[in-house]
Amino acid sequence: FQRGEKPNVALWVRKDNSIYMREIPYPTCAPDACVVHIKATGICGSEIHFWKTGRIGDCKVDHDLVLGHESAGIILEVGSNVTNFKAGDRVSVEPGVACFECKQCISGRYNLCPKVAFSGTPPTHGTMSRYVAHPARFLHKIPETMTYAEGALVEPLSVAAGAVARASPKLGQPVLVCGAGPIGLAAALCARAAGAHPVCITDLDEHRLAQAKSFGFEHTVKVDLKWTREEFGQVIRDKMGEGCHPEIAFECTGAQSSIAGSIYALIDGGTLLQVGCGKPEIELPIMAMSFREVSIVTSFRYKQTWPVVIRLLNDKVFGDATQLITHSFKLEESLEAFQTCVTASERSIKVQILDD
Amino acid sequence: FQRGEKPNVALWVRKDNSIYMREIPYPTCAPDACVVHIKATGICGSEIHFWKTGRIGDCKVDHDLVLGHESAGIILEVGSNVTNFKAGDRVSVEPGVACFECKQCISGRYNLCPKVAFSGTPPTHGTMSRYVAHPARFLHKIPETMTYAEGALVEPLSVAAGAVARASPKLGQPVLVCGAGPIGLAAALCARAAGAHPVCITDLDEHRLAQAKSFGFEHTVKVDLKWTREEFGQVIRDKMGEGCHPEIAFECTGAQSSIAGSIYALIDGGTLLQVGCGKPEIELPIMAMSFREVSIVTSFRYKQTWPVVIRLLNDKVFGDATQLITHSFKLEESLEAFQTCVTASERSIKVQILDD
Amino acid sequence: FQRGEKPNVALWVRKDNSIYMREIPYPTCAPDACVVHIKATGICGSEIHFWKTGRIGDCKVDHDLVLGHESAGIILEVGSNVTNFKAGDRVSVEPGVACFECKQCISGRYNLCPKVAFSGTPPTHGTMSRYVAHPARFLHKIPETMTYAEGALVEPLSVAAGAVARASPKLGQPVLVCGAGPIGLAAALCARAAGAHPVCITDLDEHRLAQAKSFGFEHTVKVDLKWTREEFGQVIRDKMGEGCHPEIAFECTGAQSSIAGSIYALIDGGTLLQVGCGKPEIELPIMAMSFREVSIVTSFRYKQTWPVVIRLLNDKVFGDATQLITHSFKLEESLEAFQTCVTASERSIKVQILDD
Amino acid sequence: FQRGEKPNVALWVRKDNSIYMREIPYPTCAPDACVVHIKATGICGSEIHFWKTGRIGDCKVDHDLVLGHESAGIILEVGSNVTNFKAGDRVSVEPGVACFECKQCISGRYNLCPKVAFSGTPPTHGTMSRYVAHPARFLHKIPETMTYAEGALVEPLSVAAGAVARASPKLGQPVLVCGAGPIGLAAALCARAAGAHPVCITDLDEHRLAQAKSFGFEHTVKVDLKWTREEFGQVIRDKMGEGCHPEIAFECTGAQSSIAGSIYALIDGGTLLQVGCGKPEIELPIMAMSFREVSIVTSFRYKQTWPVVIRLLNDKVFGDATQLITHSFKLEESLEAFQTCVTASERSIKVQILDD
Ligand SMILES: NC(=O)c1ccc[n+]([C@@H]2O[C@H](COP(=O)([O-])OP(=O)(O)OC[C@H]3O[C@@H](n4cnc5c(N)ncnc54)[C@H](O)[C@@H]3O)[C@@H](O)[C@H]2O)c1
Ligand SMILES: NC(=O)c1ccc[n+]([C@@H]2O[C@H](COP(=O)([O-])OP(=O)(O)OC[C@H]3O[C@@H](n4cnc5c(N)ncnc54)[C@H](O)[C@@H]3O)[C@@H](O)[C@H]2O)c1
Ligand SMILES: NC(=O)c1ccc[n+]([C@@H]2O[C@H](COP(=O)([O-])OP(=O)(O)OC[C@H]3O[C@@H](n4cnc5c(N)ncnc54)[C@H](O)[C@@H]3O)[C@@H](O)[C@H]2O)c1
Ligand SMILES: NC(=O)c1ccc[n+]([C@@H]2O[C@H](COP(=O)([O-])OP(=O)(O)OC[C@H]3O[C@@H](n4cnc5c(N)ncnc54)[C@H](O)[C@@H]3O)[C@@H](O)[C@H]2O)c1
Ligand SMILES: [Zn+2]
Ligand SMILES: [Zn+2]
Ligand SMILES: [Zn+2]
Ligand SMILES: [Zn+2]
Repeated sequence: FQRGEKPNVALWVRKDNSIYMREIPYPTCAPDACVVHIKATGICGSEIHFWKTGRIGDCKVDHDLVLGHESAGIILEVGSNVTNFKAGDRVSVEPGVACFECKQCISGRYNLCPKVAFSGTPPTHGTMSRYVAHPARFLHKIPETMTYAEGALVEPLSVAAGAVARASPKLGQPVLVCGAGPIGLAAALCARAAGAHPVCITDLDEHRLAQAKSFGFEHTVKVDLKWTREEFGQVIRDKMGEGCHPEIAFECTGAQSSIAGSIYALIDGGTLLQVGCGKPEIELPIMAMSFREVSIVTSFRYKQTWPVVIRLLNDKVFGDATQLITHSFKLEESLEAFQTCVTASERSIKVQILDD
Repeated sequence: FQRGEKPNVALWVRKDNSIYMREIPYPTCAPDACVVHIKATGICGSEIHFWKTGRIGDCKVDHDLVLGHESAGIILEVGSNVTNFKAGDRVSVEPGVACFECKQCISGRYNLCPKVAFSGTPPTHGTMSRYVAHPARFLHKIPETMTYAEGALVEPLSVAAGAVARASPKLGQPVLVCGAGPIGLAAALCARAAGAHPVCITDLDEHRLAQAKSFGFEHTVKVDLKWTREEFGQVIRDKMGEGCHPEIAFECTGAQSSIAGSIYALIDGGTLLQVGCGKPEIELPIMAMSFREVSIVTSFRYKQTWPVVIRLLNDKVFGDATQLITHSFKLEESLEAFQTCVTASERSIKVQILDD
Repeated sequence: FQRGEKPNVALWVRKDNSIYMREIPYPTCAPDACVVHIKATGICGSEIHFWKTGRIGDCKVDHDLVLGHESAGIILEVGSNVTNFKAGDRVSVEPGVACFECKQCISGRYNLCPKVAFSGTPPTHGTMSRYVAHPARFLHKIPETMTYAEGALVEPLSVAAGAVARASPKLGQPVLVCGAGPIGLAAALCARAAGAHPVCITDLDEHRLAQAKSFGFEHTVKVDLKWTREEFGQVIRDKMGEGCHPEIAFECTGAQSSIAGSIYALIDGGTLLQVGCGKPEIELPIMAMSFREVSIVTSFRYKQTWPVVIRLLNDKVFGDATQLITHSFKLEESLEAFQTCVTASERSIKVQILDD
Repeated sequence: FQRGEKPNVALWVRKDNSIYMREIPYPTCAPDACVVHIKATGICGSEIHFWKTGRIGDCKVDHDLVLGHESAGIILEVGSNVTNFKAGDRVSVEPGVACFECKQCISGRYNLCPKVAFSGTPPTHGTMSRYVAHPARFLHKIPETMTYAEGALVEPLSVAAGAVARASPKLGQPVLVCGAGPIGLAAALCARAAGAHPVCITDLDEHRLAQAKSFGFEHTVKVDLKWTREEFGQVIRDKMGEGCHPEIAFECTGAQSSIAGSIYALIDGGTLLQVGCGKPEIELPIMAMSFREVSIVTSFRYKQTWPVVIRLLNDKVFGDATQLITHSFKLEESLEAFQTCVTASERSIKVQILDD
């Protein structure tokens, strides 16, 4: 595990909506950090967003930035204060580095830390380079039986596990998942593992629903954008059946029609768990919600999920979650990897960048 | 307690936006019901709504209807199956008669019973008549020390207690209450009694805020409708102080600006508890909610609140809640009572109709 | 479906610790009830208890009593008020008939109804006869794809589902189940379906642990009664592994050593969910519990479980739960069935009585 | 605020069951710590325990130790990394210094941190000296309007607030508090502030019950140790009244009879919240608990309580909590202060040591 034996190439985004590769220095290792040779990194929709629109909400690409936050790798160096890792340890990277000083952190809700530094989100550089320094507290060992590709899947599964922690299905509760992208599929896997039954999944795209089917989800709905929300609600209820109207909807598209429709699909007293991001403002049928005691709970990133997701993934509790990975590229081919994500005909779900 | 010794006058609403008094027959007492001589009834905003607009949401005044659902009285007759009441018992009326057969009822969530018959809401006649038959299961004894006027206050306090049950403040959690009408004031009283501290109350109207002050709520905010929601949020946070940003907002106006502003006032991770009813559709800053993990929980009416609210009210846990009652009229003056509600210069909060 | 075409034979217990068969009259059908031809009934440890000891806790066999409470069958007659069933409907029987008038019932906690009439528990006759009348509210349709034997398994699975509802494992929480009898195995199936992982099961008996293994539970511990509770705790922790110390223990033996040992096995802050019944008084290490914030939550019977357990069972979410049934007898052979339960060499788990 | 202008006298305990005063060096200030001039310290029962028995549970006084953990004071020096404090700030000391690296800390449950260093508990020296260095993360500013004596009350109130957080009364839930010592009284104050009503308090000692009455608690019960637990249960239920059987019991004596009796006093489905410490092993009526679904939840110290308790105390939400303080001594009179605690005729509740 020699340090810097290969060039530390990195994938950058610029605010002019371009991405490019450029080498960066081998990182220095702070006392509480480790240097990790990143072996696998998934590309997330947010990366595409920073690339194509230069921002997510109020968070803008003002300066060139290394992207990436879904990573696993091997430790090359450990900082002087670090006792629980050694060079050679294989780890998954938790990208949100919280302060553990603020009220939110001290209450265990560190995903809301106002001082968080999140890899690949301005102004913090990300993990799409060969070598990265990262605080040891946010590195998590992965077992020998787990691949780096799986280690990099822990991040999207953590988004899903975080959502499930915010609105945990009770044993046998019917659940709707809107959107069969990586996050929606991960939410369905986590909800099912957490007791949801049956699970119904929607998408606009047949291929993604086929992927849902191959994970064993029988109830899929190809959404027609011409449906009213009442019609959407009725289709879902008919599909899931009497006695199985959804009690929780994990909304993983961010589309207004999907959000409003889900409110109508839910049983009275149900909960819409909003994961998807879309337009900053949407119209909501607030009175229909109030009269039926339907609530909207939001979920932002994750907290305390890595150790448990690593275990569940390694023990195949989700089934074979690696089916989420449809394409893999070498680090040097990162631009091609990004191009694949935005080429609809590629029908990618999760695209990963691997390095030996 | 002779039956029908006085005429059974009633207050009716017609779909042409008029209200009128008309006598109805003395009620027959079903085996599971009691006949109650109604001694006090509060007028609620929903009554004004049925009168002035002929509907609330999808619920329309198609046929002439006796209004009223905030009542207390004395039992005149008990049905043949009723064992826990006798003539002469003083009771508060719980107006929502649920089925206790359906899934929601059996789970304890009987406020969501699809078969509910709710007094004064089409097609169910209400309690604004002298004599009313009501199922015994939804009558609740009030102690000798409690007036009928207080017994009729149990209903709006139950709305508030129901909301507090849906988003219960933890000991010492800062809470915002939007709107200082009867429901907002009741919500503030219940939230404070449930551990909220400090409590900040908003309104457009100084007189209502003065009433809030007289209940001991020091933090009041007179809302300026020209504020942006960010400004609204900042005003509230400044008023409540560092370390006291609200964790729950009980929204009791239904106004879009108040809802959106509250989302900005809330601490990250906070909960907006929607009580107020307004426009069926509103624009919501869903992304601002998601990035800050702010949720919207709704609350519809109440369940299991009567016995506890009666105790708390009787034991003065809320202070002197009868201050909510600003005007009282005789049953025969019901039209005048309604007129008072819609006359702004009267500055009414809760108007009640009393009968000897 | 002719009524009473065969004699209504029944299995009785007498306070002198004997059981016997005796015919009873065909039941009359109250307005809210149905008459059910019982097709399958499981024998529960409590039946053995009433037989062998004449009591469970304060509940004594003062008068001869028909036993039985784990049953499914087909409806022969429906009472005059019953609208949601018809003759020919196949149903599983929920044996605890609650009042739905009391505070517990109205709050949804009807398992605690003080007026409950529980089949086969003094003074209420049970379901171990050919024909039984039972209130329609406590009958639940089973799908055509479900056997009566499965319909009768809904009861023990409901005990387990009820326990899981009281201490619901979060996704991926490590769970210990003590005792691999029908209830322990059902608890393990329910806990796993509800997200527990990994699940470790204990028993004194290798054959029961083998059964646990055949349900796919890899972590089994054959308990040595000579272990101290500290040793017991250590064995469990070693078996489950670092990072997997149990967060919840479903105690399904009632044995003092198992309860005390589980307290030591649990992670700090964990919960012992007591299902098993044993000695009325036990010694508990209350200080060890307090210093480690370990709690004991109890679970009594079930509420709201039938519809969901029927769905989960029918959809094979538990795997093949019929493996719990090791022996079946005809109704006329009921005495032999009981004898099998108490013959250790039979290695029975669940013994059922079937009727055509 | 000159450092060390007076001798740093300290109160020590020795394992031979003696206490003594001895000067210690002025503390050095680590980068993340502050040096505090301790102005007020309460004496807790645990200090008496270490003195009189040399141990609490497995935690023994092997080496001479400075006692004390209920303190407030003024900052003299701030460590080089500390940015949120300055000399002259008035603070309350949170004595349990957790690691914020372990699983419990990261989940917000830092009271269970296995690496915690707790002031005045072996092997960590306490706060009963004039000058103490303490990590800044565990110091909390108190407002100008709050005395140091009140600042030192934040610790016992935090024990109570922590217990209330573990079993939070719902609005209007009847609550029993066993024991009217400082912790029981604080629990009653916190439970009431959190919505409990009515609150009933027990003790063996009339004077302590009189103190409870002076805090406004009307329902007090002088326990007769000859009562059976069933009798105890009945006395409490009679005292609190029909419809007011306790839903939660905060057990603050640790006495077996009080624990067992509370189980009988509780309503079916209720929760015993164990705060008190007593014999390591006790006999519990586990079957009576199971059949009535009564649970035992434990509470260990506190987490996240300081800021909120400081606010509530300062805003007089508890009423005048300083009534808990019955005796005050100078730092130099610490031995006399301890003597007062163990002299029954002094009728002390909270004894404090003050320094100018
Ligand atoms: N809350 C968080 O912390 C968090 C974290 C990560 C991602 N996200 C968000 O989750 C969402 C999903 O992420 P992803 O990576 O799976 O995205 P994705 O774009 O790959 O998948 C979204 C899927 O939704 C489908 N879809 C779009 N509109 C639809 C509609 N009206 N009805 C049904 N299906 C529809 C699309 O066809 C697509 O398959 C994104 O909005 C992302 O920003 C949130
Ligand atoms: N969810 C339920 O079950 C339930 C039950 C009863 C009432 N409600 C609803 O609760 C709401 C309050 O009821 P009420 O009887 O107190 O009504 P109300 O009209 O008497 O009081 C509303 C108060 O809000 C104030 N207000 C209006 N817009 C405001 C704004 N933008 N900012 C601040 N204050 C504003 C008004 O001045 C008024 O004082 C109503 O919308 C009613 O329909 C809901
Ligand atoms: N709480 C409720 O509502 C409820 C309902 C039904 C049953 N129960 C109780 O659940 C318990 C289990 O029921 P069951 O039908 O499975 O009983 P069972 O007797 O068939 O099974 C108990 C199992 O525990 C094992 N066991 C005994 N002592 C043990 C020990 N020290 N360590 C490990 N294993 C031990 C036995 O070998 C046996 O396999 C019984 O006590 C029963 O009374 C409770
Ligand atoms: N769980 C925790 O984190 C924690 C923290 C601090 C203190 N504690 C414990 O809380 C308990 C109370 O602390 P305290 O400082 O108030 O102690 P204390 O000794 O001053 O008060 C205990 C009170 O209980 C009364 N009492 C004793 N036996 C009784 C009985 N059978 N029935 C009714 N009353 C009885 C005594 O008369 C006394 O007034 C102690 O056991 C202490 O160890 C626990
Ligand atoms: Zn933070
Ligand atoms: Zn209903
Ligand atoms: Zn009942
Ligand atoms: Zn820790």
